[in-house]
Amino acid sequence: MQLPSRVRIVEVGPRDGLQNEGRIVATADKVAFIRALGEAGLRDIEASSFVHPQVIPQLADAGEVFAELPSAGPVTYSALVPNQRGLERALAAGVKRIAVFTAASETFTRHNIRMSIDESLAVFAPVVERALATGLTVRGYLSTCFVCPYEGEVAPGAVARVAGRLLDMGCYEVSLGDTIGTGTPGSMARLLQELLAVYAPGQLAVHCHDTYGQALANILVALQHGIATVDASVAGLGGCPYARGATGNVATEDVVYMLHGMGIATGVDLDALLPAGERIC
Amino acid sequence: MQLPSRVRIVEVGPRDGLQNEGRIVATADKVAFIRALGEAGLRDIEASSFVHPQVIPQLADAGEVFAELPSAGPVTYSALVPNQRGLERALAAGVKRIAVFTAASETFTRHNIRMSIDESLAVFAPVVERALATGLTVRGYLSTCFVCPYEGEVAPGAVARVAGRLLDMGCYEVSLGDTIGTGTPGSMARLLQELLAVYAPGQLAVHCHDTYGQALANILVALQHGIATVDASVAGLGGCPYARGATGNVATEDVVYMLHGMGIATGVDLDALLPAGERIC
Repeated sequence: MQLPSRVRIVEVGPRDGLQNEGRIVATADKVAFIRALGEAGLRDIEASSFVHPQVIPQLADAGEVFAELPSAGPVTYSALVPNQRGLERALAAGVKRIAVFTAASETFTRHNIRMSIDESLAVFAPVVERALATGLTVRGYLSTCFVCPYEGEVAPGAVARVAGRLLDMGCYEVSLGDTIGTGTPGSMARLLQELLAVYAPGQLAVHCHDTYGQALANILVALQHGIATVDASVAGLGGCPYARGATGNVATEDVVYMLHGMGIATGVDLDALLPAGERIC
Repeated sequence: MQLPSRVRIVEVGPRDGLQNEGRIVATADKVAFIRALGEAGLRDIEASSFVHPQVIPQLADAGEVFAELPSAGPVTYSALVPNQRGLERALAAGVKRIAVFTAASETFTRHNIRMSIDESLAVFAPVVERALATGLTVRGYLSTCFVCPYEGEVAPGAVARVAGRLLDMGCYEVSLGDTIGTGTPGSMARLLQELLAVYAPGQLAVHCHDTYGQALANILVALQHGIATVDASVAGLGGCPYARGATGNVATEDVVYMLHGMGIATGVDLDALLPAGERIC
């Protein structure tokens, strides 16, 4: 086993987690939650999304959330940005890192964001260009890297093509999403072997869902392939809120527990993280 | 990765799962459950336990359960046996495979079965001897192979010593239990490296609990070390019945899903297994 000695966890709970929650969380509670995550040692926190407020009312207060977060310090707070309008709002809010998103499956992209993959990349190209010119860093999310709910299995080559477009555009890394959680250590190994023939491990992150309990096993395979950036959501937020760990995003606590147990540093204080997750639940 | 092409799953739900359930399940329901597991392709099913009926009332009907199970055919039904009296009952019931159990931690053994490890082995030695002489096969369970709730971390050397005693006694394999589910891919790798320096992979099985979500990752590490026998409990029976997958035994469904996704054969039909698990829940 060739394992990284340190793993960077990208905490997506405040954005990817909360956007799937029905009840609107007050801005002050979100800010307290995000601060608690930072105090627990998380250094990359996706804090909100500048999508149209009517699309995701839960995150309509993205600007107010960022106004309450420290603009300097050890934590990088990022935000999802769907288009130029979202970028303008993010810049006005002082956001330093944005994330753009598309998918490896044509049908999923059409259903999810009503564009073809090419159209989505055409929308993002000027967004990324302007963000980079303004000094921001840009992360790319790639959904359905394993299985598309409409098309079935997605070929690793299709993932590699779109991942390459995002990296060429200037994304510092691409997060490979197992959107419906059907990936296994087998498909993870096949995907990474294809991608790592072209890209460096540092250009890739994994975003695993625990729908079938596979997330940690898949993350372990990613680590064994040299991947050192892992997305996770505290308390597994983003799945069913009443069945923690049963579905949805992999829980940050479980990832940290595994990594520390393997002697891999994360900088996260698990004892401080647990109450943060319990409070937001 | 050097992986087995086929994995034998030892289904422990009817014994290890049900013994932790408060409500008594009717004998006929148990038998239907066990039969459904066999029809789903499971070939090693731990069906009950011949402990004293007052200790585990849920399994007091072990003899009646075995009377209703086929005595020939593709499935091996086994039973836990704590002592000579239990063996006599098992033999009378026509059981072909028994399992004996001790732990790698002295304090846990005292709390769990009120004996020292040596005393427990002394109790089991004549049981195993008579079972073997009668043509039975004997499995050994070894609890607390990672962490003892009383003593903390258990040294791999301590596990190796007791595992060796069970194998020397005539157990065809020893199942290594992560009793409180605190093992990680790191501790699993360390334990197996120690054991595989002395024993063959075919003499070892792993019995993982999903308390902290680590079970599948730990099983994956075991597979990578050549272990090809995995204990599992359908629907995760044996943990909290209302939080499937959150704690307790690893769910057979999740194990089978992972193995099939890795191209590893199990003989289990997942579509047939799912309703069996849902019905008993």
